[in-house]
Amino acid sequence: MSISFAPLKNDTFLRALLRQPTEYTPLWLMRQAGRYLPEYRATRARAGSFLGLAKNPDYATEVTLQPLDRFPLDAAILFSDILTVPDAMGLGLYFADGEGPKFERPLRDEKAVLALREPDLASLQYVFDAVTQIRAELNGRVPLIGFSGSPWTLACYMVEGGGSDDFRSVKTMLYNRPDLMQHILRTNAASVAAYLNAQIDAGAQAVMIFDTWGGALADGAYQQFSLASMREVMRQLKREKDGVRIPSIVFTKGGGLWLEEIAGIGADAVGLDWTVNLASARQRVGDRVALQGNLDPVVLFADPGQIQAEVAKVLESFGKPQAGSGHVFNLGHGISQFTPPDSVAVMVEAVHRISRGLRG
Amino acid sequence: MSISFAPLKNDTFLRALLRQPTEYTPLWLMRQAGRYLPEYRATRARAGSFLGLAKNPDYATEVTLQPLDRFPLDAAILFSDILTVPDAMGLGLYFADGEGPKFERPLRDEKAVLALREPDLASLQYVFDAVTQIRAELNGRVPLIGFSGSPWTLACYMVEGGGSDDFRSVKTMLYNRPDLMQHILRTNAASVAAYLNAQIDAGAQAVMIFDTWGGALADGAYQQFSLASMREVMRQLKREKDGVRIPSIVFTKGGGLWLEEIAGIGADAVGLDWTVNLASARQRVGDRVALQGNLDPVVLFADPGQIQAEVAKVLESFGKPQAGSGHVFNLGHGISQFTPPDSVAVMVEAVHRISRGLRG
Repeated sequence: MSISFAPLKNDTFLRALLRQPTEYTPLWLMRQAGRYLPEYRATRARAGSFLGLAKNPDYATEVTLQPLDRFPLDAAILFSDILTVPDAMGLGLYFADGEGPKFERPLRDEKAVLALREPDLASLQYVFDAVTQIRAELNGRVPLIGFSGSPWTLACYMVEGGGSDDFRSVKTMLYNRPDLMQHILRTNAASVAAYLNAQIDAGAQAVMIFDTWGGALADGAYQQFSLASMREVMRQLKREKDGVRIPSIVFTKGGGLWLEEIAGIGADAVGLDWTVNLASARQRVGDRVALQGNLDPVVLFADPGQIQAEVAKVLESFGKPQAGSGHVFNLGHGISQFTPPDSVAVMVEAVHRISRGLRG
Repeated sequence: MSISFAPLKNDTFLRALLRQPTEYTPLWLMRQAGRYLPEYRATRARAGSFLGLAKNPDYATEVTLQPLDRFPLDAAILFSDILTVPDAMGLGLYFADGEGPKFERPLRDEKAVLALREPDLASLQYVFDAVTQIRAELNGRVPLIGFSGSPWTLACYMVEGGGSDDFRSVKTMLYNRPDLMQHILRTNAASVAAYLNAQIDAGAQAVMIFDTWGGALADGAYQQFSLASMREVMRQLKREKDGVRIPSIVFTKGGGLWLEEIAGIGADAVGLDWTVNLASARQRVGDRVALQGNLDPVVLFADPGQIQAEVAKVLESFGKPQAGSGHVFNLGHGISQFTPPDSVAVMVEAVHRISRGLRG
């Protein structure tokens, strides 16, 4: 069964991902629906808790659309938590007051690891309902991005039981029991692929894999564990829906050294953090993939003139898009909760104006 | 005036830094004198506090030598705090219970920045006394490394007033008031150079600059701020003492993408974290510098067989040292306080044994 949605009015973002010509450089922001917006904080207060917000399709739709009502962004991204999949696997996601996400039942021993199963997608129906509702309410304004954490990034939380400074537990398992780690990553890869495919079926027009903690791995371990499991996700991922291409983006924060390898796993675009020089990244990957990034989020705490200057540097570093190349402007990581919303307006205007000029 | 010390019995580390032939790959560990050792914790308990330990040359000497009594390491490194220099500038270093370092008087405004002066080296005499005392008590066993934080890394603490997740204050100053940031970095560079030169005069046989937070900077900002100020330190640094070369090492954690540029600022060696592939690093810098690194510190939580296998991978990745190349084995970052000391013994033995084999 296929749901019918309004035709897309602004497909600039999708064209950039597919390295087709665009009139300007499209942009969206990682975590664009979030705490830096007073209207988000108001909705969250009504929802009572973060999970109350994320698990309710009405609220998720409301906050997903909020940044688009403020700024002429070129894509929406599903509002959801990165840990919905392990939660649906039965690990018991919760948020302690003022702390990050935690799991009640982390994977602490062989028995727990071997008992791990792919989740019943029915338990994630609230996510797919949100995707469909957001896509309908977008009414074709801009494309909707679905997303998931990478198999490795999910494994970090699943084994550590929460955030970590040094990833001691999960990396010790990786070094000592690579068989157990690969079991988790295989299970996660199949789950992530099924999860993203269901988001595509529900209406997502592009998908992104966030490998937030891939950069914590040593060279060698990264390729063997995080990258290999993302390649497996890509292998199982739908590439089109009803005859329309669904572009994909992979983003390993801190993965700039592995750019060539990341560009080779079958995604249409690679996300880059702010440590990467876009000109040399473009040189390294040629026209194999589009690039997404990479303004330092802290630039948004500077004055308007400085924001415009730093936006110009990023756009000029990528250079004039040629036939076959694609650039999606973004931050190099999620927007800070302390960002003044007016700074986002300055940045969005600057990206659109300056990038049109570069094409002139 | 020059102090007379015992002749060096093991100069393997210094020869590797100068890219001279060695019989095996020398090693030491960042933070080798530290909390993972019960004897360190005992000394610290006697000293009463971390600063009580770091500011007392007797205690500093005692803990500097502790890891050498346990393991046949190839270098000692001065035990001190990374923030002694800004403390001597009058910022008021203190440690709150269970937290990291903090400053009572961080650089929060233009007035504070413009009032910043190089410290009176006399107020750092306790550091130089420790260097001389350690060097004397080493009695030529292995060389003694002096060190400092990089100008940028010191600036991070000086502006933030402590540690930070996002370096929002210091980077906002960098983007909005680059003139103020450069004033801090110029002052820090001159101070760091004078501080390292005084350590060399006091007996340090090699020096290392820790650019712990350089990797938080965006491409472009890194070169303009952190790297440029380290180049200035190198320009002002003594290269020999009493006719003996004093090799230098620079280490930007997360700086692998900028390796060629780091290798060009005049240091003898470049430290690498575990995300960097040693073989490709060696290819990128040729024989311009020696390389130091880069085992993931979490490997030391694995079983002996795994530790040995990962040590072998690092050594084999660098490959057989040829004439003109140099490798110093180290971790890719400081050793974790939770590391089992027995794991360090396994690693040290493996580095020495396997690297001899590679030369055979």
